[in-house]
Amino acid sequence: MRFSIDREEFLEVLQKAKSATEKRSALPVLNNFLLYAERGLLTVRATDLENFLTFTIKAEISAEGSLAVNADKLTNVVKSIPSTTLYAELKEGKLSLTGGRSKFNLTAIDPEDFPEFPEIKLSAEIPASDLLKAIDKVEYAISKEDTRYALQGMYVHQYKDRTHFVGSDGHRLALYYTQSSFPLELLIPRKSLKIIEKLLRDYVGELTAGRDESFAHIKGDYFSLSVRLLEGEYPDYLSVIPESFNSEVLIDRAEFLNSLKRLSAIAEGSAFPVKISLQDNLAIFEISEPEYGEGKDEMEVDYTQEPIELGFNGKYLIEALESFDTDKVLLKIVDADTAVVIESEDPKEDPYLCLIMPMRI
Amino acid sequence: MRFSIDREEFLEVLQKAKSATEKRSALPVLNNFLLYAERGLLTVRATDLENFLTFTIKAEISAEGSLAVNADKLTNVVKSIPSTTLYAELKEGKLSLTGGRSKFNLTAIDPEDFPEFPEIKLSAEIPASDLLKAIDKVEYAISKEDTRYALQGMYVHQYKDRTHFVGSDGHRLALYYTQSSFPLELLIPRKSLKIIEKLLRDYVGELTAGRDESFAHIKGDYFSLSVRLLEGEYPDYLSVIPESFNSEVLIDRAEFLNSLKRLSAIAEGSAFPVKISLQDNLAIFEISEPEYGEGKDEMEVDYTQEPIELGFNGKYLIEALESFDTDKVLLKIVDADTAVVIESEDPKEDPYLCLIMPMRI
Repeated sequence: MRFSIDREEFLEVLQKAKSATEKRSALPVLNNFLLYAERGLLTVRATDLENFLTFTIKAEISAEGSLAVNADKLTNVVKSIPSTTLYAELKEGKLSLTGGRSKFNLTAIDPEDFPEFPEIKLSAEIPASDLLKAIDKVEYAISKEDTRYALQGMYVHQYKDRTHFVGSDGHRLALYYTQSSFPLELLIPRKSLKIIEKLLRDYVGELTAGRDESFAHIKGDYFSLSVRLLEGEYPDYLSVIPESFNSEVLIDRAEFLNSLKRLSAIAEGSAFPVKISLQDNLAIFEISEPEYGEGKDEMEVDYTQEPIELGFNGKYLIEALESFDTDKVLLKIVDADTAVVIESEDPKEDPYLCLIMPMRI
Repeated sequence: MRFSIDREEFLEVLQKAKSATEKRSALPVLNNFLLYAERGLLTVRATDLENFLTFTIKAEISAEGSLAVNADKLTNVVKSIPSTTLYAELKEGKLSLTGGRSKFNLTAIDPEDFPEFPEIKLSAEIPASDLLKAIDKVEYAISKEDTRYALQGMYVHQYKDRTHFVGSDGHRLALYYTQSSFPLELLIPRKSLKIIEKLLRDYVGELTAGRDESFAHIKGDYFSLSVRLLEGEYPDYLSVIPESFNSEVLIDRAEFLNSLKRLSAIAEGSAFPVKISLQDNLAIFEISEPEYGEGKDEMEVDYTQEPIELGFNGKYLIEALESFDTDKVLLKIVDADTAVVIESEDPKEDPYLCLIMPMRI
């Protein structure tokens, strides 16, 4: 194997590919990239056995071949070499990399040891920007606990003429939707979402998707990714979203957030209890932490209905409010014992809602 | 106790005072500030029993008094309240803080539980900028190991007409000096250096210093700090600095650093072995890591003496080079088995030297 390549383009691919490597595995080969050079293209592969990522990049190839090499060290070396073009060659079991007055020889390993990749199957189109936006909007709400297996991913599901993207940990739920027809039902694990996020950030080309029994596949102009889907059935999230409400109040999102963040000043941890009282055009926010004391904040709102007191985990409220794009949000209330729904003021501009379970305070 | 105070000034003091609190102590009071209000001044105190920090700040005091209150929570609250003036009052065992539409009540504890502070003794002047610069220049070289007790601080020592500021871990040494007479011999522990750094950053006033048997004291316009000195005798650092050399070479500091950082691309950890060969106006840098491979880099230098090979811990070289202010540095060599000395090209502009022990490679 011998090729020369644009150093910056190569580096960009390596930095994206690194997200699918695995350092702490019993299988050390997972901390390597597979490289193969043929017919004017260099292919870079990385996998952690859950995610299988492939890039192709143009290169001046003077001898075809393949090898595997430590992912971190290759990335570091390509980053550090001070020239625009990089020369690479497999010599005596080492990948020799030269540029400027620098030369590195990296220990190469047998490409045969690298895991096989699943076959890519494609059947549907999805705009990369939709998928990216959906991850951005629902990722925070996905369960971080190992106990609820099916909640550890983003659920993609066609509902009527909308595609739903859902994240939930059982205490809260985030739902982003697009007016589109996407025939695939997918449950994509958290780590894969991070890889997709990194892959699609700044990507402007076409994106096609598909699935088989075990994997979801996506393919762009110069990359493809196969993701092992979470098994198990996603809970019936539609049934937990109330259909009718007793009151609603339009709230300035930034003011609401500021009040909550202010109260968090005396919170014991990142999760903290907040009481919200709505009465006479006023929203009053209160926190009480036994060890440290109490805090109170208030803001004017347009609310003249029956006074009501609601209790929440303030962290959930903050994370939900931070995920909206509109200046105002609608707080939709059934009663103190039922989940509250937060919706953007204008669902056309920001087709998104959050649901938060109440907390006894 | 009842006072009103400029919120931003108060916050600045609290943020600086926090560095002398201690969260993980068996004595929970150390995670508190002592506040006392009298004669138009609010005093804020913090201590971890090694460092005793006192600030005074102007306040509108309508009732004198004192209390202790959790340092983090007070800082958070003062930071979060959205008004220029803050109103504070001790009521029913709580410090009530009000500003804008926010109100907090923080649990106060008995000020009698707060540790006594040492008496401040002052006898000498020292420019704050000198002390700050000295810490900046030598802190990185101070020992992080518990075994060499006397090396865990910065040594301040008068030598002829210079004040020496020394940091060393036994493998390397950093020496900054000023043309001045400072009669106190001090051995200031690492944590105290960090507190002094934070205290003096952006400070432009006078600074006086003193010491007694156990403490060093410094006093500025609105603060004072007592620091428990390290006990034990500082090693005779002057005896390890070679007095004559067999060769020296002037090196571009940025180029030298770039070559070393490039090689670190394949280093196993932050510490890594580097071989430097000097010959025929060339400096060749080499790294060899058994698991990952080899790297080589070179730069032109003005060197026509006998070829020589030197071995070092590359991390020590990088940290030393980063601490100089001049563009070029002088590498002064005895032989491959003796410590190398790095000096700034112009000791008047940058009165500083680093010594690094060699490493067999």
